[in-house]
Amino acid sequence: MFVLGIDPGLSRCGYSILSGRGASTRAVAAGVITTEPHEPVPQRLVALQQEIRRLLDEFAPSVLAIERVLFQINVRTAMGVGQAAGVVMAEAAATGCEVVEYSPNQVKQAVCGDGAATKQQVGEMVRMLLGLSEQLRPADVSDAAAVALCHMAQSPAPAVARR
Amino acid sequence: MFVLGIDPGLSRCGYSILSGRGASTRAVAAGVITTEPHEPVPQRLVALQQEIRRLLDEFAPSVLAIERVLFQINVRTAMGVGQAAGVVMAEAAATGCEVVEYSPNQVKQAVCGDGAATKQQVGEMVRMLLGLSEQLRPADVSDAAAVALCHMAQSPAPAVARR
Repeated sequence: MFVLGIDPGLSRCGYSILSGRGASTRAVAAGVITTEPHEPVPQRLVALQQEIRRLLDEFAPSVLAIERVLFQINVRTAMGVGQAAGVVMAEAAATGCEVVEYSPNQVKQAVCGDGAATKQQVGEMVRMLLGLSEQLRPADVSDAAAVALCHMAQSPAPAVARR
Repeated sequence: MFVLGIDPGLSRCGYSILSGRGASTRAVAAGVITTEPHEPVPQRLVALQQEIRRLLDEFAPSVLAIERVLFQINVRTAMGVGQAAGVVMAEAAATGCEVVEYSPNQVKQAVCGDGAATKQQVGEMVRMLLGLSEQLRPADVSDAAAVALCHMAQSPAPAVARR
């Protein structure tokens, strides 16, 4: 089962595709989709749409887990983040992929056991949970992996694994 | 030339397709795309995506004019409006349709000559400019027509019309 984690953004949209369960969870692909700030917004949304479509085609994830936009944080960039999240969610749901949103607090709570964890703590827990020697960089990628790990932690393990 | 005006929203997305120029401008289609508030957001975005695609296919507008989301107005609904606007803009731009955003003030200024015009004043000017006996209802439709009229007012007339 592949889970595609998304840290949404218009200038930078982080993604991580995780596979496995529990201690065997591994990242099979990760990166950042960037669009040019000087380009018109509609063209940037199309570029993002095409890259997300490519990921959905290539990996056929069963779930897309995406961090919920919080408008209180930064009103100036919130519009672009909301627009980007809308495009990503529509593309995934249109292919039949389940889409689940998690708040930043839910992600931190699931990954670090503390809804007020710092970026550094989240990055370090993601590193440990994925068995990596170094933290995922840039932070967008690590944050995308964190939301995918959050979804995996919420999902019940298959019955066979519980025996 | 068809101009597709959009008053974006996730629960209610108004649209108006206008044709012609100046005193001959007419509405050829108009309506509201609604999605069910109790449905999951990703499914609602897909429903909106499909309806917008249908309009783009049927009318092949050369321009999509969309009202710019202002987050200051209502933070609670702004997220859905931003997501909906993102989906609409991406769909249009992906088909090669030009996409132009206008602020609410720009729309009121263009249609009423007053950036602080009331909803009622905008509705009445839209009615007059489109040669209708009654105002377009509901307000989402009238607002979508207003942003299309705003675009038409900004666009230079073809050279032949200026002779």
